[in-house]
Amino acid sequence: MIYHIFTYLRKIFDIPGSGMLNFISFRAALAMIFSLTVALFAGKRIIRMLQRRQIGDEIRDLGIEGQMNKKGTPTMGGIIILLSILIPVLLFARLDNVYLLLMITATVWLGMIGFIDDYIKVFRKNKKGLSGKSKIIGQVGLGIIVGCTLFLNDRVVVREKVEPHTPDAQLTTIGDQKIWSKESKSTITTIPFFKDNEFNYDMLMPGEGKTKEMGGWIIFVLATIIIITAVSNGANLTDGIDGLLTGISIVIGTTLGIFAYLSGNIIYADYLNIMYIPSTGELVVFMAAFIGALIGFLWYNSFPAQVFMGDTGSLALGGIIAVFAIIIRKELLIPVLCGIFFVESLSVIVQVSYFKYTKKRYGTGKRIFKMTPLHHHYQKAGNSGIDAHIQRPFQPLPESKITIRFWIIAILLAVITVVTLKIR
Amino acid sequence: MIYHIFTYLRKIFDIPGSGMLNFISFRAALAMIFSLTVALFAGKRIIRMLQRRQIGDEIRDLGIEGQMNKKGTPTMGGIIILLSILIPVLLFARLDNVYLLLMITATVWLGMIGFIDDYIKVFRKNKKGLSGKSKIIGQVGLGIIVGCTLFLNDRVVVREKVEPHTPDAQLTTIGDQKIWSKESKSTITTIPFFKDNEFNYDMLMPGEGKTKEMGGWIIFVLATIIIITAVSNGANLTDGIDGLLTGISIVIGTTLGIFAYLSGNIIYADYLNIMYIPSTGELVVFMAAFIGALIGFLWYNSFPAQVFMGDTGSLALGGIIAVFAIIIRKELLIPVLCGIFFVESLSVIVQVSYFKYTKKRYGTGKRIFKMTPLHHHYQKAGNSGIDAHIQRPFQPLPESKITIRFWIIAILLAVITVVTLKIR
Repeated sequence: MIYHIFTYLRKIFDIPGSGMLNFISFRAALAMIFSLTVALFAGKRIIRMLQRRQIGDEIRDLGIEGQMNKKGTPTMGGIIILLSILIPVLLFARLDNVYLLLMITATVWLGMIGFIDDYIKVFRKNKKGLSGKSKIIGQVGLGIIVGCTLFLNDRVVVREKVEPHTPDAQLTTIGDQKIWSKESKSTITTIPFFKDNEFNYDMLMPGEGKTKEMGGWIIFVLATIIIITAVSNGANLTDGIDGLLTGISIVIGTTLGIFAYLSGNIIYADYLNIMYIPSTGELVVFMAAFIGALIGFLWYNSFPAQVFMGDTGSLALGGIIAVFAIIIRKELLIPVLCGIFFVESLSVIVQVSYFKYTKKRYGTGKRIFKMTPLHHHYQKAGNSGIDAHIQRPFQPLPESKITIRFWIIAILLAVITVVTLKIR
Repeated sequence: MIYHIFTYLRKIFDIPGSGMLNFISFRAALAMIFSLTVALFAGKRIIRMLQRRQIGDEIRDLGIEGQMNKKGTPTMGGIIILLSILIPVLLFARLDNVYLLLMITATVWLGMIGFIDDYIKVFRKNKKGLSGKSKIIGQVGLGIIVGCTLFLNDRVVVREKVEPHTPDAQLTTIGDQKIWSKESKSTITTIPFFKDNEFNYDMLMPGEGKTKEMGGWIIFVLATIIIITAVSNGANLTDGIDGLLTGISIVIGTTLGIFAYLSGNIIYADYLNIMYIPSTGELVVFMAAFIGALIGFLWYNSFPAQVFMGDTGSLALGGIIAVFAIIIRKELLIPVLCGIFFVESLSVIVQVSYFKYTKKRYGTGKRIFKMTPLHHHYQKAGNSGIDAHIQRPFQPLPESKITIRFWIIAILLAVITVVTLKIR
């Protein structure tokens, strides 16, 4: 909003320094500092308010040491995250950008679903919250909106470098550098180890020309729906111990933010030989607010947590990550970049399936993990495994340590994601 | 080493894929993954070895809850960090680079001093370790070596953009882009809010020409000595609770690594209008190993710690940060970027001075902080201050939380450091 106001005012007056607002990096920095500040200051008030209304999570007794201490810790802290993202984005980002509008939609949409879920859990005292089916309908709905917008909107294009003087090509001159490029509406995406790291969804379709292209878009929309649903639920499952999802999301968000910055800048994209997607640079402002909000939230959410984000937070975080990755055409990197969400979800699926299978076959259900989602396994497993020798005796692996180790794995996965893109 | 071997081999054979080693980013990624792996795997063995030899810290009873639990936790874990930095650097970096050799010197030099200090503490059971004077002599010695090398070595130059066809200027052509630049041996450095963000130490000297220039270098060498000593000691004081210094150093290291990457690449330096310093790109490989080593070390060092880094680690970490910042001419950003070291040191100085002053004046010494260095103040202060309302009753601010909050402040300081450079 501030961008638009200043752009308008500058047509009339000469405001010194206001030209800085043209720089994405400057607005991103402002957005980040602002969101962090909102999370810290509004956060404190919101936590107090949640405490007064006794919006504490009903803690199920999982038989984990120290875990019943969490009773009374308020949930729904996701509200802090959502506000701290939305306010700076509305202030500092360009609101005429289609990608940015999609991100705002995703944030509000999944935030609402999560909020309803938490609301039912807390005020209706119904531990199950919103039914699984309703949640999935909501996620699929968002997938359809995002997929169709990207398909139908004319401004959603990729720009590829072409030989100088190709017909219809556009010339960009920055300093002494001239780059010839051509826009195309395409279902192209990024995938490592492929030629040029590029993959086009229409390759999966038979046929030629328009039919093939149309088929490619249908696959793209389906992929969008699946990815949004999977990542949103994965994040939801990962949110189980203090600070875990918050920290992992900061790592993933930073990686995606760097991708968006590089993909949205023609100079960098050309130099690094990556896909140039016009207008995605603006998403950096969004991601900066996202990172700032999470860092501020972590102030209260780190072990021992003073607030939980609840589904209000976790569903939205997963959705934001998914939609962002899809927009900058990095969605096929998610299984590695969001590897922790993936493995946490897998642990639940494996556990449940194996239990059902053994129950049917042998009469008694057996388990593979001591408990799922996976992070609880380590809380129970405690001393066994890699650290048995150097862990002090009689202590289960402490919550704070599991959190930081999962963060470290998230960082490693982020590095691997970036590295695989360099190998071609 | 691998770089040199392959460069040699490639003159004779054609090895597919080995050209990747020419990319700094690729070698940096390898160095980071390698150092993380060394820290994780060698780390476990080293910790067991330290435990067997009973190299545990003698914990002074500070009257902090839970703090006596730390008894028996081995110290000297800095060895893990030093090995995990040096092995990948020797393998993946170009060893003909003067800056890289300085970094290796700093690491080994301060690592040795720290090791001797820890050794005296542990094996001679002398809690004071090496005398403060000896430590400072060591730090000043390193400062003299670094300062004089930067002064005397011919390859230590800055390259400034000049008008096309200036006499003696060199033309760099990358793609369609032409950049004219000129080398100079100069005491120029980076400072925010100044014209072009640049400051020359010789501005502090009167006179003209050679005298002024010489004076500039003398001030530069003195500044180098002071900065190395201050940062190394600041890091040493900051290392007091589990994972604190490790995490802060990761944040500072990442920021400096990004600066080095941008300053060492003529395209980025030109685009961002920052100082271009030839050959500093190679330092990115060093910093990647540094970050990887610390992330790996954090696996064991995070709360509750299975190992402490000891002075072997902390003196070296501070020294590495200082020397790196000096080389890439960002040393004047240290008071903000390393603000936590600064405030921790300040808290000790203020506390001691005030105590002495009040003792002299009133007969009994008074304290400002409950305890210093500052992080202990929060452990004792517990419930007071900003979180009194939302902290659960009767709990002091837990160690794990202080650590993460200090990390968050470190991140904020890093963002501020970057932002101030954008404003000009």
